[in-house]
Amino acid sequence: MATILDGKLTQEKIREELKIEIDEFREQGLVPGLGIIQVGNRKDSDTYIRMKERACKNLGIFFMLMPHDENVSVEHLKESVRFLNENNQIHGIIVQLPLPIHLNEAEILGLVRKDKDVDGFHPENTGNLMLKRLDKAMVPCTPSGCIELLDRYDIPLLGKHVVVLGRSNIVGLPMALLALHRNATISICHSRTENIMEITKTADILVCACGKREMVDSSWIKEGCVIIDVGINAVEDKTKKSGYRLVGDVNYNSVIDKVSAITPVPGGVGPMTIGMLLKHTVQAFKNQTFR
Amino acid sequence: MATILDGKLTQEKIREELKIEIDEFREQGLVPGLGIIQVGNRKDSDTYIRMKERACKNLGIFFMLMPHDENVSVEHLKESVRFLNENNQIHGIIVQLPLPIHLNEAEILGLVRKDKDVDGFHPENTGNLMLKRLDKAMVPCTPSGCIELLDRYDIPLLGKHVVVLGRSNIVGLPMALLALHRNATISICHSRTENIMEITKTADILVCACGKREMVDSSWIKEGCVIIDVGINAVEDKTKKSGYRLVGDVNYNSVIDKVSAITPVPGGVGPMTIGMLLKHTVQAFKNQTFR
Repeated sequence: MATILDGKLTQEKIREELKIEIDEFREQGLVPGLGIIQVGNRKDSDTYIRMKERACKNLGIFFMLMPHDENVSVEHLKESVRFLNENNQIHGIIVQLPLPIHLNEAEILGLVRKDKDVDGFHPENTGNLMLKRLDKAMVPCTPSGCIELLDRYDIPLLGKHVVVLGRSNIVGLPMALLALHRNATISICHSRTENIMEITKTADILVCACGKREMVDSSWIKEGCVIIDVGINAVEDKTKKSGYRLVGDVNYNSVIDKVSAITPVPGGVGPMTIGMLLKHTVQAFKNQTFR
Repeated sequence: MATILDGKLTQEKIREELKIEIDEFREQGLVPGLGIIQVGNRKDSDTYIRMKERACKNLGIFFMLMPHDENVSVEHLKESVRFLNENNQIHGIIVQLPLPIHLNEAEILGLVRKDKDVDGFHPENTGNLMLKRLDKAMVPCTPSGCIELLDRYDIPLLGKHVVVLGRSNIVGLPMALLALHRNATISICHSRTENIMEITKTADILVCACGKREMVDSSWIKEGCVIIDVGINAVEDKTKKSGYRLVGDVNYNSVIDKVSAITPVPGGVGPMTIGMLLKHTVQAFKNQTFR
């Protein structure tokens, strides 16, 4: 029987742990704070931001949203980043992506103060992650959520072959590096990979972050493989009130009898990402306050 | 018959190309410059520095060596880095490693001006490499030498499985990332890897940078594999005047009939590293002078 890696339940535990810490800080008059910069009003961004806001407020983390018009100038946006950089109430900063096309994401993300960069997108944080200076690095939330989930289910990484499908700067690449730093053997496959199954079949842990709906089925994996499914894809489903349901990059029903453990979609990696954002915000607050 | 990937010959070609460029700069009164910071007088460091000095002088690159006593203070060393950072004659800076134990290498390397960091060891250069901002990143010389050698022998990377043995910040990790950015599938194996041959046998290109003398033999690879041997290990040999000879991480005689191409040791990757250092220095000079 496969273990279901329950990200929702795990996130709740993380929140409980953080709540205790934050309550103690608040008794001392200290409050961690998160600031989000939003440009335009994409529906999906609205949803994500509202989830983050709710999570912060439940925990007692100060929350500030700086909304901007779709057509905001680069200069104006830079000033907002500077404002949050210098604001003592704010310890973590998120620039909600994607930004409209006229703005250079790399340029804007590079302005976020490195120690407030709770998304881990600044090049120097990326570099420190690669160089295994994990005390200095702010690490992207989704891959650190995947590692945390494996840890909390006592699934070891040492010596294991972790195969990552997808090579994004936000998930695939940092995921592979985090696993490597935990002494896993790592492979990164992507759209250009030849003979992909030759590699995925040797995976002890398969992390799917390629954004291809239900691409991975049982023929891709070996018996007893652990699957972390980062994919979130909407599929039409008339039996649902919303008209659609969410599925991952893995064909869950196909693999469920072959895997030893798997994350569901939804309720797996998704909630862990928010859990780690909260954890990173509290960590950034501690670094800035007590070091 | 295996192709011998001749690093010595290729380095000579690179030097000829650079010479033409540098001569043109010098006609305009412009001279690229390289500065090296040395601490103590390790014999191997002396040798490497002398090779770099000779290479620079042959090409017309201005060369400055700043030697320091073994017991130099951190403050004094920092001042030397600052001196080279601000010196207009110097476009590339190397801190010759390893430093004595009382000095924090990461701290010193982090002070080198990013655009003069021809070794590519600054965290922000590392981050830009990971983030595929290759126009901004200064990349470590050994892995970029490996890629250059493959390119000059028209060995394609796209879609190929590149397996790297070793995960150092200087060779293994950046090598894997450079290959990934060229659309290779990548795997990184190391001392903790279980079932290593299961992975190396699927390699189209095997990069050996683990520092284990002649560890890889024909049983590790598939027919037609390309091997890049980064290892340099001294073995006692009484038939040699020096009393030793150099071998790689690969048992050359064991694999030679099975590979499609291979770098010799010596004369493979070693000369490419110096070739790339010269190329990076000229590139840094151009970035600083013409941008």
